[in-house]
Order: sequence, then C-alpha cells, then structure tokens
Amino acid sequence: MKKHNFSAGPSILPQEVFEKAAQAVLDFKGSGLSLLEISHRSKDFVAVMEEARTLALELLGLTGKGYQALFLSGGASLEFLRVPYNLMTLHGKAAYLDTGTWAAGAIKEAKQFGDTIVVASSKADNYTYIPKDYTIPEDADYFHCTSNNTIFGTQMFSFPETKVPVVCDMSSDIFSRQLDFSKFDLIYAGAQKNMGPAGTTLIIVKEEILGKTGRQIPNILDYKQHIDKESMYNTPSVFAIYTSYLTLQWLKENGGITVMEKKNDAKAALLYAEIDRNPLFQGTSNAEDRSKMNVTFLLKDEAHTEQFDKIWKAKGISGLPGHRSVGGYRASIYNAMPIESVQVLVEAMQDLEKSV
Amino acid sequence: MKKHNFSAGPSILPQEVFEKAAQAVLDFKGSGLSLLEISHRSKDFVAVMEEARTLALELLGLTGKGYQALFLSGGASLEFLRVPYNLMTLHGKAAYLDTGTWAAGAIKEAKQFGDTIVVASSKADNYTYIPKDYTIPEDADYFHCTSNNTIFGTQMFSFPETKVPVVCDMSSDIFSRQLDFSKFDLIYAGAQKNMGPAGTTLIIVKEEILGKTGRQIPNILDYKQHIDKESMYNTPSVFAIYTSYLTLQWLKENGGITVMEKKNDAKAALLYAEIDRNPLFQGTSNAEDRSKMNVTFLLKDEAHTEQFDKIWKAKGISGLPGHRSVGGYRASIYNAMPIESVQVLVEAMQDLEKSV
Repeated sequence: MKKHNFSAGPSILPQEVFEKAAQAVLDFKGSGLSLLEISHRSKDFVAVMEEARTLALELLGLTGKGYQALFLSGGASLEFLRVPYNLMTLHGKAAYLDTGTWAAGAIKEAKQFGDTIVVASSKADNYTYIPKDYTIPEDADYFHCTSNNTIFGTQMFSFPETKVPVVCDMSSDIFSRQLDFSKFDLIYAGAQKNMGPAGTTLIIVKEEILGKTGRQIPNILDYKQHIDKESMYNTPSVFAIYTSYLTLQWLKENGGITVMEKKNDAKAALLYAEIDRNPLFQGTSNAEDRSKMNVTFLLKDEAHTEQFDKIWKAKGISGLPGHRSVGGYRASIYNAMPIESVQVLVEAMQDLEKSV
Repeated sequence: MKKHNFSAGPSILPQEVFEKAAQAVLDFKGSGLSLLEISHRSKDFVAVMEEARTLALELLGLTGKGYQALFLSGGASLEFLRVPYNLMTLHGKAAYLDTGTWAAGAIKEAKQFGDTIVVASSKADNYTYIPKDYTIPEDADYFHCTSNNTIFGTQMFSFPETKVPVVCDMSSDIFSRQLDFSKFDLIYAGAQKNMGPAGTTLIIVKEEILGKTGRQIPNILDYKQHIDKESMYNTPSVFAIYTSYLTLQWLKENGGITVMEKKNDAKAALLYAEIDRNPLFQGTSNAEDRSKMNVTFLLKDEAHTEQFDKIWKAKGISGLPGHRSVGGYRASIYNAMPIESVQVLVEAMQDLEKSV
C-alpha cells in the first residue's frame, strides 16, 4: 500500500533522493566504493560540498551578496549556542522573539550566555499565535526569531524591519517559500525537514556581521573558522550532506522555491479548508498565523479519536499524531509531500464525518 | 576489479553493513518508509538508539560499571570543547599529552578555555613517537590523551597510572583492541574509522565524574543533559547511528574485540614485516610506537614514486597516499579490512622491488 508520511521531522523526501542516496551507499559515482568509505577530502566529495554550498545560496537568491553557506554538524540546537558566541558582544545584549518550543530553547541557551531580552512571547496562550507588536531595542547585537513553529503549527508571514542583524531559525520552512532572504543576516536550518536527513545543519551567514564581538570564540563554534576551511574544519557529515545536495538538486530541477511555494500553498489551502468546513474538526492556531508546513488540528469531540485513527491508518497515512504539547493531529506537508497525499487525508476526515 | 580501500577515514566498513544501510534508506524494517523519513522518536528508531548504546558498553566490557554511552553530533572536534566545559573546574587546570595533530587540536581548544598543561610533546620530532616519561600533576582536573594518531601512525600501548580522571580520544582505534576500558573515565570517538560513517561521535562517560566543576555548562554541551534525554536531547544523526549500530552488531557476531584484535595484529605484523624487509621502504614512526591501525611508510628513494603508484593503483588499491604532514604512504587497516587486502599491498611492494 502507498504510504502517506506526514511526519514532522525527520520527514518525507523525494523518492528519487532515497533511491540515489541508497545507490551511493553501495557504489558512489561508479567508483566501486561506498559513499560512506571515501575520504571527505576526495575530489568527488569536495565537489559535492562545493556544489551544495553554491546551490543553497543560488536557490535563496543570495549568490554574490556577501553570504557564505556552511553545512555543519551538531543540529540547530548547537546553533542556539553558536549564534550568541559569534554575535553577542561582551557586555552586549540580544533580542529574541518567543514563538514556540525551539524559540524557547534558543532563548534558554542565550540567557545562560549573556543579556537576553525576550521582546514578545505567546507562551501564555500555548504559542497559538505569532506576536506582532513589539519593539527591538536599537542597541541589541541581533534579533532572533523562528520562522515556523513545527510543534504549534504557526508561521511568521512578516518579519520586523530593524537595523540590528536578523537571525532566523528556518529549520522547518527553509526552501518552502519565497522571501527576501537578503533581509536576514544569519539563517540556520536543521536539514531534517525540507532539505535532507538528520545529521547536518545549513548555515547561511552574511560575512560582514562576523568578528565584531571582541570575544574569543572556541574554534569549533567560530563561523569564521568554518568559512576559512570551506565547511571542512572537521570531518563533515558526508551522507547527510550528500542527501541534502540531492534534495536541493531536485528542488532546482523542479522549478525552485517559487514553484514549490505554489504547490505548498495549494496543499495548505486544501487541508485548512477541510478543517474549517468539516464540523468535526478545528484548527489549533490563530487563523492568520497558520503554518503552511505543519497543519495542527483537533477533533472537537475526542470520542471520535479511535474511529478517526482507524480511518486514516487504513489509508496508509503515518506520522499524523500531534505533539504532546498540542495534542490532536499534525499534518506536516513539506516540499516532497504530493497534494495527492493531502487529498487522502482530507478524504479520511470526510469519511469520519459520514460515519458519525 | 575488487577494491582495496586503505583510506584513513571515512574508511572501509563491512560490505554487509553497506548493504543493510542502503536497504534501510529504501525501506526501513519493511515499514514502507525510508530510515531517513521516520521520526527519531518512533518506536523502531528509539530501539536502535537503545541497542546501540547498550552494545557499545557491552563490547567494551563496561556494562554495569557506572558508564553511559551517547551518540552525539558535532564530531570529535566538538568533544575538544565539551571535555573542558564538563570537567575543568573554575580556576582549575587540565593536563594534556601532545602526540599529534588531533591531540594538538584538543589542546588548542582547552588552552583557550582554561589553564592547560602539556605534560609532554613529540611535536619537535614531527610526532614520530609517543612520549613516555612525564608527570601528571595530581591537582589536574583530568588527563587527556589520544590513543592512536591517525596522521603520524603511532599508537599508545600503555597508559599512565594516575588518580586524576583519564580522558581519551579513541577516534581511530576504538573497538580494534582489548584494553581495560574501566581505567578510562571518558572516551570519545568519531564514528568514521572503526565504527561507522561520518556524522556521529560515540561518548563513553563514567557518570560520577560529571557535575563537579561549579561551572554553568551550555545545555547542548552538557553531557548530563544528553544522558538525561537518553542521547536524544536534540534530533540525533539517525543514519550515522543506525549504520554504526550495524557495524557494532557485525563486530559482536564476529567474536567481538578479542577476535578483531588478533586479526588486526596479524595484518599489522604482515605489513610492518614487509616494510622492514623490503630494502626500498622504511617506516616513519618509532618501532615500539607503531600504530596497528595506520601504517605509515616512505620510499627510501622518491624516484620510485611514479613506478610504485602505478603498481598499487593497478591492483585496485585506493586511499594509500600519506597525509601531507608525513608524506609517503599510509595504509589504514581498520577492523573491516581483510588480511587479503594487506597481502595485495605487500605484493605491490614486492613487485616494485623486483622491477627496480
């Protein structure tokens, strides 16, 4: 039976990416060797790294604009620490927007590090909305936000105009929609949603913002060191980077972000329309802040849970249960998810309606 | 043609591991989903993580002895920073043994962090030997050493008796030989030599040494946080951990470390015997410190380079050129390398002898 994988991450990738990645594990580029056993400094892998870095900037429209792309290890949670180390001046302060669990994680790491101001938070309302009225102190070293909140199903559709450098955790919506990415000074994203498997983090950084803190930075945490070593300061996560590269290639071959955004808009519109129409369901997040990547919804009457779960499982759907912080359901509809799978979910919701 | 891969790392793994890993990328345990697209919190992957952690301790003979095994991200180079963060007390000091490039990297990171004493160094002799006469200050917070020096082809065959906690970077010889691992308080190893592909680091830590520094540790760098979260503080490097797990299973099924050590001894003896016998070659490292994992050697007359390179390449050998710091050749003969491949290299050396 065809599977419809709505997992929030690690999550669905294009089938052709799985096939090419599996082939490379057996034999990389006809070398007779596995991708897993070759030196990261071999000509073939150095080319992969360079092309992946170039492609990431190209897809975001940042080529030639003073940015560097890095594929590092440690997860977005390590960037929670790298960011203040690289950007917070001695005795300086940072401004953070608190929109969910990961934003709060970034804040926790920054607070331990130095003066960290939370400019706004929707925590008191279980992060059901994106705060919009807030002021970023002009003397902040940077402003940090999370563009999409995987757990709570909210997304930022506008970003503040500010003179301080803007840092954004785009782990769960990078490459899913067109933005003026040049308005961001540092973007980071764990690969395991729209870009690849778990194991690497993409960092896009405007070089001119670095080296200004007066702080000694541990080598492994210093973006400049990684830039100088062309993203090979230490052994990179070869397989995760290669698979991310395959996914970026797939994205480019399929029209890039603009085409992808249209498809993502259509998928989200289809699913939210059903949530709003179907009398048995309700969304969990503020309508204007609804995420186009992670669609969170509840049964109005929990008594239907067993019946609904039976229906969607019978259709080959997986990964639908919501995060414990929200409950209910979460349909993650990343780039690689075809609209046909969303249609199957909508049918499951309609089947429930007919059956009760 | 059969390939004989002597790459220093990422490096050879068992063929059956490549096959099982590739299969999991296409379909993980008959689920109809790729290993790359399932949640790291799914039952099947949580089981992999738990079994890998258990197996690592079991293979090292550390079960029930107060140790925890973690599979973290960031590479051994991140452990260069995590170690002082977790073990160096405020105003305390650490003792390091400088035996090569990676030891020096660990020292560099620690020096920037706090008072770091280098108890001995063989740097002045291009790291051709392991220093043996040195004193570890009794008031050091810990002693750090590197058990095998991948670049310089030296290995520690004895470890100092000391009352201070012993920390060891075993990236390039873990699981290759029997040691009393309970004499170490913290062991770390990048997976990409004897254990798996690049992308995860195994950390073996004696719990009782943690939490004693009086220092606030960033969450992502705190071993205690990772232990509390059962090695899933943040999304783990799923594919690299699964492939490491397959390799540890292979090791167990093939007799464990004791059997592996005998095979490794035989491979090293065969190759060093030829280096010493063949009048055209010489080893680069001090005889008693010669590594059984990375065998470094030179042509006595560099005029034979072109001819020798032609011979070994024609036999399907790859990954043999030495690191630029040493020159010549480096044959890395990790666990998964069969003695037949070493024999092919010996034949190449003998063919050169006959041809000149």
